[in-house]
Amino acid sequence: MAAVFTSQMWQAVICDCFLISSCLTPQRMLSSEVLQALETVTGSSGLSVATAVREQHGRDESFHRCHPPEAVVWPQSVEQVSSLAGICYKHNVPIIPFGTGTGVEGGVVAWMGGVCFNLTKMDKVVDVNAEDFDVTVEPGVTRKSLNYYLRDTGLWFPIDPGADASLCGMAATSASGTNAVRYGTMRENVINLQVVLADGRVVHTAGKHRRFRKSAAGYNLTNLFVGSEGTLGLITQVTLRLHGNPEAIVSAVCSFPSVQAAVDSTVQTLQSGVPIARIEFLDDVMIGACNSYSKLNYTEASTLFLEFHGTERSVEEQIHVTKGIVKENSGSDFSWARDAETRSRLWQARHDAWYAAQAMWPGCKVIPVAHRRVQEFTSRLARRALAMQGTCTGEHGIGLGKRQLLIEEMGDTGIQLMRDIKATLDPKNIMNPGKVLRLASEC
Amino acid sequence: MAAVFTSQMWQAVICDCFLISSCLTPQRMLSSEVLQALETVTGSSGLSVATAVREQHGRDESFHRCHPPEAVVWPQSVEQVSSLAGICYKHNVPIIPFGTGTGVEGGVVAWMGGVCFNLTKMDKVVDVNAEDFDVTVEPGVTRKSLNYYLRDTGLWFPIDPGADASLCGMAATSASGTNAVRYGTMRENVINLQVVLADGRVVHTAGKHRRFRKSAAGYNLTNLFVGSEGTLGLITQVTLRLHGNPEAIVSAVCSFPSVQAAVDSTVQTLQSGVPIARIEFLDDVMIGACNSYSKLNYTEASTLFLEFHGTERSVEEQIHVTKGIVKENSGSDFSWARDAETRSRLWQARHDAWYAAQAMWPGCKVIPVAHRRVQEFTSRLARRALAMQGTCTGEHGIGLGKRQLLIEEMGDTGIQLMRDIKATLDPKNIMNPGKVLRLASEC
Repeated sequence: MAAVFTSQMWQAVICDCFLISSCLTPQRMLSSEVLQALETVTGSSGLSVATAVREQHGRDESFHRCHPPEAVVWPQSVEQVSSLAGICYKHNVPIIPFGTGTGVEGGVVAWMGGVCFNLTKMDKVVDVNAEDFDVTVEPGVTRKSLNYYLRDTGLWFPIDPGADASLCGMAATSASGTNAVRYGTMRENVINLQVVLADGRVVHTAGKHRRFRKSAAGYNLTNLFVGSEGTLGLITQVTLRLHGNPEAIVSAVCSFPSVQAAVDSTVQTLQSGVPIARIEFLDDVMIGACNSYSKLNYTEASTLFLEFHGTERSVEEQIHVTKGIVKENSGSDFSWARDAETRSRLWQARHDAWYAAQAMWPGCKVIPVAHRRVQEFTSRLARRALAMQGTCTGEHGIGLGKRQLLIEEMGDTGIQLMRDIKATLDPKNIMNPGKVLRLASEC
Repeated sequence: MAAVFTSQMWQAVICDCFLISSCLTPQRMLSSEVLQALETVTGSSGLSVATAVREQHGRDESFHRCHPPEAVVWPQSVEQVSSLAGICYKHNVPIIPFGTGTGVEGGVVAWMGGVCFNLTKMDKVVDVNAEDFDVTVEPGVTRKSLNYYLRDTGLWFPIDPGADASLCGMAATSASGTNAVRYGTMRENVINLQVVLADGRVVHTAGKHRRFRKSAAGYNLTNLFVGSEGTLGLITQVTLRLHGNPEAIVSAVCSFPSVQAAVDSTVQTLQSGVPIARIEFLDDVMIGACNSYSKLNYTEASTLFLEFHGTERSVEEQIHVTKGIVKENSGSDFSWARDAETRSRLWQARHDAWYAAQAMWPGCKVIPVAHRRVQEFTSRLARRALAMQGTCTGEHGIGLGKRQLLIEEMGDTGIQLMRDIKATLDPKNIMNPGKVLRLASEC
């Protein structure tokens, strides 16, 4: 439930992703006829075939092997997205959606060539309904820019993956973050989506303009598209549930004599019904890396980062219960972060864990000597989660990197259902092809 | 967000549903060959073609026109369900799942004939994981029987539609209830489903035996089946999220000078961030009916029923905030229900509102003089919700009764997507045909 990060896992993640950073040029498929048609929609400033631009769009933060698209387009409206998709559909050209490019499973890699749809020029906050706690935004709006926009409303959007990702991209990958313990993930916080389908049709997954809090009306299309990673359609608008700013926020850090003691404290805190907002584990090596990278001086031991949200009295009560549990598990005293600046520094260190881990091997993005061993470790880790009735990916999605694990997780019939749904919504297999589900040619 | 019940709405619901209570005999389709094949699976005690039995299975609580199935089967295992479905698939025979028959949109009506699958003999609690807050049950387990089973674990399942419905049926109809304000609906509380598909294949929507709290692994099949009302497959097992029993529970009732004052209090309470568990509105006429039916003596005025869950201190604080809001809106003092028995009597009165409304017209299940007028009112009510960016059904589903409204809610492309998904998963259209989506012949 709570995220657990050990230095071994970070090493594994890094090594799994930083395999090859050179770019591969895809086979040329785009005719000048198609390029001209695309440019008719976007204008010349909204289309590029420049190598540097294409290479920028051929990878995400993970350094999965870079495959640049053949062209990049910057549509400025859903109508343009629809027209562009229609052109690609007619000519059987792959479509790869692109937001901030901050994914880590190779979701934006143009594996089969095609056209990258960079949606960041669609950046309007379309509609805020403060009284109803909802907001509708376009793909160019990121989570930080939304929260800045909301700063005077008393509301916020709590889902916080490390990166300042696009909210539509977060919907596409079913993102979560440190606040998921209390506020859920994108699956629980998306109310409606505007989606452009492979053939250019536009659909609102919960009906046009609808923003109800609950419904029992027909099939749940919204949650079919959340987490579909661009393989079923292009998300061009998302309606999100907002939350009231807590009256009080207190963060704390405490260390433990062992991993087990920290894990037991976490489980017992959750079981006790404390509505804790954040609870994150880092092991001694990871804490050392964070200390070094973020200029901190936490004890290098198994450590929990915690955060409590609520009224003053409720936060006080939550802390009282949690402190008791931590003490029983031989945890240290809490070191506190009560003001916004100190809290922000604390959590920035956690969000920077990825870069802190990289910095452990200065100047090095790949660990060639340990490469195969770490790859094997990554697979063993995911398969152990599967053997314990878990999932191979709590966040970040499947992309290119976890397709085999998805097969093992779902079993044959489940994968077949997913394939059938994909074939129904994207019969020409042009929507981010080869992601989530393997291509027939790979099976 | 909070459920709102006025006497006008109850009249409308009753009149909309109690149209005709006579039974229609469907065209005979089942050959003796099919009946024999079914009986080979179930044994003679597991199949019936008796008129009385069939008529019992041809309607739900709503008195949508009764259409009895041609046969009823009582499978005792998922293997039997799979074999029976395989026979129906081979012979193009409709399959209608049946749990407690407590729906109100005609979901179990054997509109096209076929075989009713009564799943109540599959009634095991398969697996309780108290430490992880989850449970897996078969279709014969109802919400009350589950909570009785859990009574010594410190856990409970809070979703509470009025009826003591089957939990698998609740998943199939995306049920909710008075606790939805705090605990969500079935959509937020189903972790995994075991489903028998039209052709007899068995699928686990989140992978076999999996019971993770969050995942980003592929398409969300679980939420595709939640609320699909038996039109995509038969739910034979559900894994649910459990919740810890609150340390303290306090219920309260207060009355208001107007509907608006009660509604304003509700909105302000939710906006203030009070994690209220239940908040339900009843108007003066409805309160009169409840007083009379349940032998109570509440003031006959616009009324809120409320309930607070939490630690002693948290409940105290929630009540303090809510009382202030109610007072500002000229609400009455609270009348309290603190012990389990008094609370239970209070909420039973609310759950019995359906019967209390019926009892306003003694001996009468239809209101022939007002029939058309009330039907028109029902449609106007739903369309007003749609015009205000809402849904035509917050709970109870679409069934037969709201198919036209679903079309208006979703728009052409959304409905077409639902039709495409239905055709993919149920190509012969044998899974509860004609429910949720209109048949081609009706369009």
